[in-house]
Amino acid sequence: MTAQEPLLPLRLDATGQSLIILDQTRLPGEEHYLALTRPDEIREAIAALRVRGAPAIGLAAAYGYYLAACVSTAISFASLRAELAAVAASLAACRPTAVNLAWALRRMERRLQSSADLPLVDIRRHLLAEAEAIRLEDEAMGLAIGTFGLDLLQPGMNILTHCNAGILATSRYGTALSPIYLGQARGYHFHVYVDETRPLLQGARLTAWELGRAGVDHTLVTDSACALLMRQGRVDACLVGCDRIAANGDVANKIGTATLAIVARHFGVPFYVLGPASTVDLNCPDGGHIPIEERNKAELTDLRYRQRMAPPDTQVYNPAFDITDHELITAIVTDRGVIRPPYSGQLRRVFA
Amino acid sequence: MTAQEPLLPLRLDATGQSLIILDQTRLPGEEHYLALTRPDEIREAIAALRVRGAPAIGLAAAYGYYLAACVSTAISFASLRAELAAVAASLAACRPTAVNLAWALRRMERRLQSSADLPLVDIRRHLLAEAEAIRLEDEAMGLAIGTFGLDLLQPGMNILTHCNAGILATSRYGTALSPIYLGQARGYHFHVYVDETRPLLQGARLTAWELGRAGVDHTLVTDSACALLMRQGRVDACLVGCDRIAANGDVANKIGTATLAIVARHFGVPFYVLGPASTVDLNCPDGGHIPIEERNKAELTDLRYRQRMAPPDTQVYNPAFDITDHELITAIVTDRGVIRPPYSGQLRRVFA
Repeated sequence: MTAQEPLLPLRLDATGQSLIILDQTRLPGEEHYLALTRPDEIREAIAALRVRGAPAIGLAAAYGYYLAACVSTAISFASLRAELAAVAASLAACRPTAVNLAWALRRMERRLQSSADLPLVDIRRHLLAEAEAIRLEDEAMGLAIGTFGLDLLQPGMNILTHCNAGILATSRYGTALSPIYLGQARGYHFHVYVDETRPLLQGARLTAWELGRAGVDHTLVTDSACALLMRQGRVDACLVGCDRIAANGDVANKIGTATLAIVARHFGVPFYVLGPASTVDLNCPDGGHIPIEERNKAELTDLRYRQRMAPPDTQVYNPAFDITDHELITAIVTDRGVIRPPYSGQLRRVFA
Repeated sequence: MTAQEPLLPLRLDATGQSLIILDQTRLPGEEHYLALTRPDEIREAIAALRVRGAPAIGLAAAYGYYLAACVSTAISFASLRAELAAVAASLAACRPTAVNLAWALRRMERRLQSSADLPLVDIRRHLLAEAEAIRLEDEAMGLAIGTFGLDLLQPGMNILTHCNAGILATSRYGTALSPIYLGQARGYHFHVYVDETRPLLQGARLTAWELGRAGVDHTLVTDSACALLMRQGRVDACLVGCDRIAANGDVANKIGTATLAIVARHFGVPFYVLGPASTVDLNCPDGGHIPIEERNKAELTDLRYRQRMAPPDTQVYNPAFDITDHELITAIVTDRGVIRPPYSGQLRRVFA
């Protein structure tokens, strides 16, 4: 990283009463932070992608759960529990594909349950401690993924990445980009091809911004340029994040990931999926069982702008995620190490 | 087509002194026509993509060449020829990848040469006749491609198309979309997945618009959704246009075509390339010899809008075309029929 302040996209303020998030919908134009105190504000921030990325939305939901306890006026544990269950259900429904959201909320609910006999003020302390534990584990996760992932790379490599699986998707170090930053600190001089990632342009708006802030050499390309880039020999490896990893190694991630994986396989370019252990879902047998979130058609027709970009009433199919078949994945990197095919046995052995 | 006026994106007005073009940069918001009389206006319209698509830009250049003769004040054939040679060079340089531009201009130059002994007024008539011949051949070409292409399709099929190889890319019937329109007229009830085609969104802006105008059922998707669509079994065939076909069958077309072809091959979906005979370039041995036009970085960073979509000074690689390996192509459809692998011999036999 450069000499400037480290980028912290998601953290509690000093009072512990509000969550400070970098509003990612305003990047790259403005580095603008919001202070959120109510669970419905956090739900809105998750749904509107002000905070996004599987690890970050899990953490945001955990903080939302804690803040719901802070603002609650429940007079019994039963009513507090019911109130927080409703908050958790509402938060979990915002983004159905990523497993981290449900995972983080289950942790918070277990902590609530284990605090049942305590006064409310102590329950709040326990929930805060759980959310902070999730945050610190997220930081450790990012560092571990960076270390394991860097072993797969060589100095001077050209890396293609999709969407944003960087600092902005986590509390601090990122997932797919963590090896890049670690390598940068060690003088590896990577060059990163950033695809823009339609429809919400997380690559153009977020990844290009955070790589630039960290001084990493990078070039923006369209999503569909991947075949040309690889045909020209410009890509040595693909690094992508993940929202859920099924028991057989199938991966759900931002729409376009599977397209990239197929093209990488065609050209013999290694395709690495990087994500926290919390994205592994052994209860999900394969990619066919992962729900695919469909988002608003305006993301394609209006491009976040006033000017309409498709004719009125155009029918739109706007899936936010796709499934990458495990056979297309060279290795899966988590904070518990590098997993290689065959995935079914390996994932079960490491994560059961 | 519906009962409304047929769409004529490119035609001379009744006086024969100005070229009427539909300004495609203003679609889908406005169906706005421009009247162009000077070759530099036509050059600007081609360079700014007001008129685009390989057949259409060839025709526009032919009209530009003719209009240059109309406005010329040359007093000898030698000076007229020199003047028109400069116009032709300037028009040809606007878009280097498509072969039609150079092809159409060569036709005009041959016609000029064969009219060398005539008075200027007759030279103009000959050049007009040549440009009109190119237009009528383009209409016939579109109908022929539609007929041959329709033989490859079944009623009710789901078709995925990329960019705009439709009416708007030609003078009247389109290339890749011509079988769709012909099928529509016969009650085939196709459904077309239109990918938006970044960076200039020809799919979202143009293809969705012209399919809607013709009453063809269609759905807009992102470019990168192709793998998910095919994994879900939603695509029966891909139909794309082409800017140049090399002697070995390699195809240059809008960036993203090769990505789509690789994904289609992975899922066993037929991938058809449709284009006029004039796009076959037997002098070009393979795709490695086709120049790839690189366009302005603002197409990725500014999205044709005021609002900037990537950080300032982001390095951009913005190739407008890519090369689809002939091994990925199920068949090439031209106005001379359907060509199947192995392409080298077949292309040479049909087009030599």
